[in-house]
Amino acid sequence: MGHGFFVALEGIDGSGTTTQALLLADRLECLGVRVVRTREPGGTSLGERLRELLLDPRAAIDARTEVLLYAAARAQHVAEVIAPALSQGAVVVSDRYLASSLAYQGYGRGLGPELVWQANKLAVSTCLPDLTLYLDLAPEEALRRRRDRGDAPDRIELCGDAFQARVRQGYLSLAASQGDAAQVVSAARDRDSVAADLWASVTACWSGAPQTTGDG
Amino acid sequence: MGHGFFVALEGIDGSGTTTQALLLADRLECLGVRVVRTREPGGTSLGERLRELLLDPRAAIDARTEVLLYAAARAQHVAEVIAPALSQGAVVVSDRYLASSLAYQGYGRGLGPELVWQANKLAVSTCLPDLTLYLDLAPEEALRRRRDRGDAPDRIELCGDAFQARVRQGYLSLAASQGDAAQVVSAARDRDSVAADLWASVTACWSGAPQTTGDG
Repeated sequence: MGHGFFVALEGIDGSGTTTQALLLADRLECLGVRVVRTREPGGTSLGERLRELLLDPRAAIDARTEVLLYAAARAQHVAEVIAPALSQGAVVVSDRYLASSLAYQGYGRGLGPELVWQANKLAVSTCLPDLTLYLDLAPEEALRRRRDRGDAPDRIELCGDAFQARVRQGYLSLAASQGDAAQVVSAARDRDSVAADLWASVTACWSGAPQTTGDG
Repeated sequence: MGHGFFVALEGIDGSGTTTQALLLADRLECLGVRVVRTREPGGTSLGERLRELLLDPRAAIDARTEVLLYAAARAQHVAEVIAPALSQGAVVVSDRYLASSLAYQGYGRGLGPELVWQANKLAVSTCLPDLTLYLDLAPEEALRRRRDRGDAPDRIELCGDAFQARVRQGYLSLAASQGDAAQVVSAARDRDSVAADLWASVTACWSGAPQTTGDG
């Protein structure tokens, strides 16, 4: 997909993907890199409307419907945002992408990663991340963090700790199958230490990364 | 899928699927049959919200996104409405179903029926119509009817006559591949003549159809 570089951040709810996507994008921008920061579900006008539907705690949504709605939002995200940015040479930093569907619906909901992948093929076509960064965190610690920041739980978060534990294991299985295109980083540390590890992964994986000295 | 009977009505915009679904359901109900009449996109609370999105003339929706949104609405429709009704022995009469996606997105938008079917497998699982009734009509005549009834064109209808012509040909190809589970009926006649032909198809195909004398 073009000549840019595509990084996705993944992890269970509370693992810090949103914060770390922001820190990573800021650091790249400070070095003069053209960055497009985006998120799933969402990232487009249609996607934000679907995000509202998907995260609404009152919505009764079948597991298969959920897979297809996330895939629909992703197809629009690829067509409108990710593919055009990569073809213009930008670095795309996405807070969640394909691995979220595989982990949450494939492992968490128990549909199996293969069925979820079949439905997502149409959505992603050939647009796969060059690097997926997995923020690994114990579900109990992730829950504590979500409570500390006072978040009202959304529909997915309400699925509980056993669900989040299956999602975490799903993420680790996915990472193990992706070789150099995946990096697992412990999120059970302060945010700057995590950010430093993620930065090291990006510069190791991306040949176009700017040269810097030091760590910050 | 259970012991009921599942009939889908299909045809290009203006061919009369909505009117004929109503007439067919009414006739069955008058004979004491338990009927669930439904429609796509829609048929569920989530589906109606997606219907608004899909038919909004202002929405910019990628062709792949469109396929996945219709599939998502269908998955919910099957889970909430169609499968439960069939398992309780009802006759389900749906104004559009799977063949609409294959014809409109597969043939009309040119994605090909195979790609559209792949995305829909997750949605329909084993829930396929026992009988699909195809209302065949020339696109020019269908357009004249839509104008006569003063409809504001929706996003799909705005695609024009060449699009509707591809959809019509798609429907005819699908019908040809479905054998006894499909019936093509000319819609270029008054609505009661069309209804009589559809009724004959249903009673020929459905072993549980009530015995009636005469034609109305």
